[in-house]
Amino acid sequence: MRPPRRVVADRVTLAHGGGGKAMRDLIEDVFTSVFAPPGMEDQARLMHPSLLEPGAQLAFTTDSFVVSPMEFPGGDIGTIAVCGTVNDLAVGGARPLWLSAAFIIEEGVEIATLRRIARSMQTAAEAAGVRIVTGDTKVVGRGSGDGVFVTTAGVGVIPPGRDLMAGNVRPGDVAIVNGVLGDHGAAILAARGDMALTTDVISDCRPLNLLMEAVLAAAPDLRCARDATRGGLASALNEIADAAGVGVVIAETDLPLRAEVKGVCEILGLDPLYLANEGTLVLFVPPEQAEAALAAMQGTAAGVGACIIGQATAAHPGTVVMKTVFGGGRIVDMLVGEQLPRIC
Amino acid sequence: MRPPRRVVADRVTLAHGGGGKAMRDLIEDVFTSVFAPPGMEDQARLMHPSLLEPGAQLAFTTDSFVVSPMEFPGGDIGTIAVCGTVNDLAVGGARPLWLSAAFIIEEGVEIATLRRIARSMQTAAEAAGVRIVTGDTKVVGRGSGDGVFVTTAGVGVIPPGRDLMAGNVRPGDVAIVNGVLGDHGAAILAARGDMALTTDVISDCRPLNLLMEAVLAAAPDLRCARDATRGGLASALNEIADAAGVGVVIAETDLPLRAEVKGVCEILGLDPLYLANEGTLVLFVPPEQAEAALAAMQGTAAGVGACIIGQATAAHPGTVVMKTVFGGGRIVDMLVGEQLPRIC
Repeated sequence: MRPPRRVVADRVTLAHGGGGKAMRDLIEDVFTSVFAPPGMEDQARLMHPSLLEPGAQLAFTTDSFVVSPMEFPGGDIGTIAVCGTVNDLAVGGARPLWLSAAFIIEEGVEIATLRRIARSMQTAAEAAGVRIVTGDTKVVGRGSGDGVFVTTAGVGVIPPGRDLMAGNVRPGDVAIVNGVLGDHGAAILAARGDMALTTDVISDCRPLNLLMEAVLAAAPDLRCARDATRGGLASALNEIADAAGVGVVIAETDLPLRAEVKGVCEILGLDPLYLANEGTLVLFVPPEQAEAALAAMQGTAAGVGACIIGQATAAHPGTVVMKTVFGGGRIVDMLVGEQLPRIC
Repeated sequence: MRPPRRVVADRVTLAHGGGGKAMRDLIEDVFTSVFAPPGMEDQARLMHPSLLEPGAQLAFTTDSFVVSPMEFPGGDIGTIAVCGTVNDLAVGGARPLWLSAAFIIEEGVEIATLRRIARSMQTAAEAAGVRIVTGDTKVVGRGSGDGVFVTTAGVGVIPPGRDLMAGNVRPGDVAIVNGVLGDHGAAILAARGDMALTTDVISDCRPLNLLMEAVLAAAPDLRCARDATRGGLASALNEIADAAGVGVVIAETDLPLRAEVKGVCEILGLDPLYLANEGTLVLFVPPEQAEAALAAMQGTAAGVGACIIGQATAAHPGTVVMKTVFGGGRIVDMLVGEQLPRIC
């Protein structure tokens, strides 16, 4: 392979998306020199022995990321583009293996910004033990995009016999989260700067696949897991209640929340149950395996703050109810309208 | 599965990207009701017997599509988003199986436009025999995007023993294209309307995987194939010459060009060798299999216009030379700057 060429421009121009030399230079210098994909052909050629196990399934998912600002405390759009897709695979029971990364770049973006995003992606990929194996770059004119949009797709393997589906949850199952809620949403809000908020909260974006493997080893009857991204914990719980035909009861006093996040929510009139997370999941386990699952989570970097927040119930199927600090119960609906635009 | 919900709004709002009910309605009504993915979980769970054949490889690729205008004679952004990724897999020797589709939608886009794009995608997927199995939707504010951007990723299987790589081409190998050049670029230019061009040329966007299988059956020693998209035929040939360390000689008189495309190029001072295509490929075969390859191509819908355009040579390695109508030779370089922005 030839040594990486150097892009000498400071900013991206339309020529960097035209399919010619400038594009090839940009891709080789900024992206493939960092990701080190297995080949330079348009498509990656891959195989992994776990795919060949009888009964194994291939898992395939995608997400576009349009977060504004692109860089924020605790990460950047590259970090969440990798973590988000890794986590989608992991909560479905898959072991993530390979990612693709497609960039839509607005003319005028600084090359240095792209380099930082690429490095964040590679760092997150290494933390998750996955490889970025193929990609694409398009450039749109000024005003036809907004900085950088990143779309990742991910391929993983679901080992034989694993079946994590929201529909599996049964009454009595215990709901556990791996840590505090709403950090990503609060960090983005503060980073946006138009609220004059100052806070030390940083995004929770991180890969959850190692945590998922630890839980599955300790609690083999894990019913399902879901990352509480757009729409927050409230939407994740509602999707599960809906799919399984069970009710869910959570206790407000058990919800792990940072004082700073509570404060941001009180000032802005937001509900932390709807704030986005990028490294926080909720999972349901049979009650007899709840302690084992909790201990396994707490033994991982991403699960130190794990705690039980509630339980599935045969009462009010399809509905999530929160017992409030005042002893009442309120229905926690799915998010109806918009919460925070461009959060992920 | 519940019956599809109906989106009643005429246009996309930020709420359609917020992660709540409005988003779920949009996804179920506009996208999953058309694509009919195998499940409603975030990730698709898949398996195909061809993946399990000893020596088979998994192929994985991605592309973002940002074409402007989104709808043009012969297709729309949905058609090329499916065909582009199918073709990337096919020219690498893979049999495409599954696609993901991620949408970045600007606030204000008409729901009816999204419905047309989704239907175009499904039509193209059916023509290629692939399934759209997973997806994502994000909404950006007015002025932060431009209509709809679509990113597809594709997974396919390379059968055991297949090895199509640009580096395989040897001196003497014959170069064949499957049809006329530049139709997509010319159609987009005309559709853009700012050149006051009127032409009947329609985009060539179409899947090429069935053509590739026909060629491989007839000419098993096929060296490599490449679709001539961004950067046109000139860039594809240069990439091959570069990777294989061979020269390529093409004859101007042998290049298949519509009179209308020639006319558009003459008026605008463009070179058809650099015009983008979305269903046109160039392939190299050993000379003794050239006739068989040509006949096989001509027997497929996408290859009726197939013809030989040139040959690889040991002379001038890495360089593409065109013998002109006047008997001279000119170097056909890779595209250096931009050609036509937002062509694909």
